[in-house]
Amino acid sequence: MKLASFAVDTPVGPQRRVGAVDGDDLVDVTTAYAAALAADGDADPVTIAQAHAPPEMVAFLRRGDRALEAAQTAKTYAAETDDETGPNGGRLVFPEEDVDLLAPVPRPNSLRDFMVYEEHVKNAMGEDPPDVWYEMPVYYKSNADSVVGPGVEVEWPAYSDLMDYELEIAAVIGKEGRDIPAEEAEEYVAGYTIFNDFSARDIQGEEMEARLGPAKGKDFANAFGPYLVTADAFDPEAATMRAKVDGETWSEGTPGEMYHSFADIIEHVSQSETLHPGDVLGSGTVGEGCGLELGKFLESGNTVTLEVDGIGALENTVR
Amino acid sequence: MKLASFAVDTPVGPQRRVGAVDGDDLVDVTTAYAAALAADGDADPVTIAQAHAPPEMVAFLRRGDRALEAAQTAKTYAAETDDETGPNGGRLVFPEEDVDLLAPVPRPNSLRDFMVYEEHVKNAMGEDPPDVWYEMPVYYKSNADSVVGPGVEVEWPAYSDLMDYELEIAAVIGKEGRDIPAEEAEEYVAGYTIFNDFSARDIQGEEMEARLGPAKGKDFANAFGPYLVTADAFDPEAATMRAKVDGETWSEGTPGEMYHSFADIIEHVSQSETLHPGDVLGSGTVGEGCGLELGKFLESGNTVTLEVDGIGALENTVR
Repeated sequence: MKLASFAVDTPVGPQRRVGAVDGDDLVDVTTAYAAALAADGDADPVTIAQAHAPPEMVAFLRRGDRALEAAQTAKTYAAETDDETGPNGGRLVFPEEDVDLLAPVPRPNSLRDFMVYEEHVKNAMGEDPPDVWYEMPVYYKSNADSVVGPGVEVEWPAYSDLMDYELEIAAVIGKEGRDIPAEEAEEYVAGYTIFNDFSARDIQGEEMEARLGPAKGKDFANAFGPYLVTADAFDPEAATMRAKVDGETWSEGTPGEMYHSFADIIEHVSQSETLHPGDVLGSGTVGEGCGLELGKFLESGNTVTLEVDGIGALENTVR
Repeated sequence: MKLASFAVDTPVGPQRRVGAVDGDDLVDVTTAYAAALAADGDADPVTIAQAHAPPEMVAFLRRGDRALEAAQTAKTYAAETDDETGPNGGRLVFPEEDVDLLAPVPRPNSLRDFMVYEEHVKNAMGEDPPDVWYEMPVYYKSNADSVVGPGVEVEWPAYSDLMDYELEIAAVIGKEGRDIPAEEAEEYVAGYTIFNDFSARDIQGEEMEARLGPAKGKDFANAFGPYLVTADAFDPEAATMRAKVDGETWSEGTPGEMYHSFADIIEHVSQSETLHPGDVLGSGTVGEGCGLELGKFLESGNTVTLEVDGIGALENTVR
């Protein structure tokens, strides 16, 4: 199943919702689940639907399997019914083109980004990775307040002239846990989405000399989307993907083996640290998945489209 | 004024409150402000007090000067009245020893840690800082979910044998802003607290070889407290402070000039990034403010007390 966060313009201001993708439509999960409950004779379907499948993604993820089952029920009910509205008068289905698609998790609880593709590390560092890279999945933490969604124009920081994209897969945590063994890690992943880790290469290179990792080079824009594909429906190591700039393919391929899998990542990070629903873990750039590796950079007005088969296309323009 | 977050045990479970410190007592800001409003004839004092001065610190900080004025009114009212309870029956004042003092911001919106004391950088790196250190306040982002309060015992991660403390001051943002000039930065700081940036030196040194900054070396425990001292009542560059281990002074002095002031830090970070109430900015370790610089480390059972004159003492034991 593909899930989305979206905003609907209303006379009382924009309202955020969680959707289940059905072709070009978004089923409003909370409303359609309430409709399904009402059809089943539930005494208070609107309240129960809000509790089981709330219309905000982090709250939705906290409900775990109960919310995912509600989304499936909602999608099935919306496809079968002739009704257009639910028990509180809300619409069951919105054509995607009529709403604003947001990042699937508009404000993650936290955002960590790893670096697990050996080819990218060799290309980006210009040398073999240090020993520690092979020993553990290394990472930095990015800015969860700087998330942008599909179609959002990214205003490049005035302090940078070297604009780059990074083609990544992100896993979204769906269950709280600590000291999670790799064998059990799968049940903690709600799903996957595409991550464009926009990078200001000039200041990034400069600030990393001080050994505290990237900050201003990464924290101004983190694009995610268009959908969150549930873990049962996507295998990150089998994914095929490409990055296009103004329609021209810059990066392409199957990244294949992650030197450290998402299961290894979750085992490593959760040692003495609690993972929470809504935590986002980026894979790091796939081999040849950024301009730095290709020796070319973005220009103002360029549109970057990251396509991952099975997830969709994430498009953002830089200015 | 000194503010605190604290938890009161009740028959319906622990309740979190915001307090204004008055000697050994904590004035319950929301309740005492409601009492002051009631005494003034307000039609709905409990509701208005909840809106102006909510009992959760990040929400409280979002109310800006209105909340700080409510806290001052609450403190003054509680000192003058003979009543023991407010209009909803809640207590106005709790002796600090009867409650659980929490970190002043129990779950920051975000947590950035800088490195602005030249002596610490020279001692810790064993060499002169790189040029970029002089050009901008460099930083990493830590784990906002790993905050612990005064008195909390820190369980050392199983993956580390080198236990260290770091003596720091932290500024807490009280107002949303972006592209803030240094001259205006002061109005964005709600106040200051003490920060013990516990550090697992072995894995920290190892993982930093991969150039993404510290992660597992820092993210398991970030201690803050005991109070948030409002910005008008504390000057971080004039502070005197010390670190004691089991009562023995390890670090002592006046750190004096920050090479990059909190105003410079705020100007730098807020470029193309929005700062939010509840964002926490650590100064980095003051000179000789950690065991690494002194060539000695903590042992299991050690109690670390960080004292900053004008804020208080933050005590945590490591296991």
